[in-house]
Amino acid sequence: MSGRLTVIGTGPGNPGQMTPEASAAIARAELFFGYGPYLDRLDLRPDQTRMASDNREELDRSKAALDAAARGADVCVVSGGDPGVFAMAAAVCEAIEHGPETWRRLEVTILPGVTAMLAVAARAGAPLGHDFCAISLSDNLKPWDVIEKRLRAVAEAGLVIALYNPISKARPWQLATAFRILREVLPVTTPVIFGRAIGRPDEAFAVIPLGEADSHPADMATCVIIGSPETRIIDRPGRDPLIYSPRSTGT
Amino acid sequence: MSGRLTVIGTGPGNPGQMTPEASAAIARAELFFGYGPYLDRLDLRPDQTRMASDNREELDRSKAALDAAARGADVCVVSGGDPGVFAMAAAVCEAIEHGPETWRRLEVTILPGVTAMLAVAARAGAPLGHDFCAISLSDNLKPWDVIEKRLRAVAEAGLVIALYNPISKARPWQLATAFRILREVLPVTTPVIFGRAIGRPDEAFAVIPLGEADSHPADMATCVIIGSPETRIIDRPGRDPLIYSPRSTGT
Repeated sequence: MSGRLTVIGTGPGNPGQMTPEASAAIARAELFFGYGPYLDRLDLRPDQTRMASDNREELDRSKAALDAAARGADVCVVSGGDPGVFAMAAAVCEAIEHGPETWRRLEVTILPGVTAMLAVAARAGAPLGHDFCAISLSDNLKPWDVIEKRLRAVAEAGLVIALYNPISKARPWQLATAFRILREVLPVTTPVIFGRAIGRPDEAFAVIPLGEADSHPADMATCVIIGSPETRIIDRPGRDPLIYSPRSTGT
Repeated sequence: MSGRLTVIGTGPGNPGQMTPEASAAIARAELFFGYGPYLDRLDLRPDQTRMASDNREELDRSKAALDAAARGADVCVVSGGDPGVFAMAAAVCEAIEHGPETWRRLEVTILPGVTAMLAVAARAGAPLGHDFCAISLSDNLKPWDVIEKRLRAVAEAGLVIALYNPISKARPWQLATAFRILREVLPVTTPVIFGRAIGRPDEAFAVIPLGEADSHPADMATCVIIGSPETRIIDRPGRDPLIYSPRSTGT
């Protein structure tokens, strides 16, 4: 019997934002590897098996999933958002590169999903409407000075910035430091958007000018979008403002 | 009667990649504004009306859609991919900012989708597995020297680069010029991924080292992903190689 491994993303968590092809992959698979809260989003049948693990065990989880597929199982590796953006697809590839030859022969399929910054952007208006970047603030896997250098470079270049992994118990100071660095480059009026669990019952959403931005509205599941100097705020009577980055730039 | 406007994305074109909430918005709306080939992806009923327009008329299309909503229609504005990434959401916001006060009172909802770079990345492996950016190569709405400056800045900062709008009949030389600039900064072995219509019958996919990359595999609908110096290629017997950017960076 020949196993296979499919890496899926649930989207930001609102079931209406998970793609039909991801749902079909879930219906077909028998063994599910992922961070517990992401597996909780799936409506698994009694004949399907959960293998939940902690959030910071991506490589071990990938190895266990590949091993199960190599033994013949139909395996699904579950990410939140899109599996290719600061999520499980890179960890699975890393495990394959450094693992046994048999893992290179496996059928591995990666299915794209709606990543957090797209859902937060849609909730706000269109802040990613011109050139933008996505940067993880976690210095678990890269030195902090690389992150600082990247933040300065992209802010000076005029890109909108989406920050993933902005804060955690083990990384309490990085987000406030990032805002301090960005205040050296960007206007204090630049809008900073904090979004988590968009479209879910526990949604949180806030917009704060960069000059006043602090880490307190953020948690591990928050995506933070910082505008460019050209990002605009449209006030609307009786409605949230629309925040957008115009398609025309740098004139 | 009070109209409303919903901006949706169809995803990259494979129907399995359009979200259920976008499908529900389509089922509910009565009037559809969009570029003809995107509207062709929808399976509209006889009581639903298409208002197709050319690819470069985003602002006029937005105004027409807002005007129809202000007159009471349930309007859907249709993008490919995600509406917030080089697509209709920013054009709609721009029209609202500069339009009549009544447009600010409208119920406007933007629904996220799977943008092209995520589908191309998933087809390749996980090339967006670490920090990355998305840059439009179109100099219709920004000066070319801004684009050159951004390309150098993000390549020097070590970000993976996704290029949207790489080429068109009116913009034939920009992509080859971008590769020439990037060759001044990045190793010639850096993988360049060309993907279009991933998951559709007319899918095209190619991986070429930066040293040999030229504009010929690209057309208007292609998304081009250029790795960072740390992006890896995993050869696999009997299968396409996996291309991924490791989560660990800059050690």
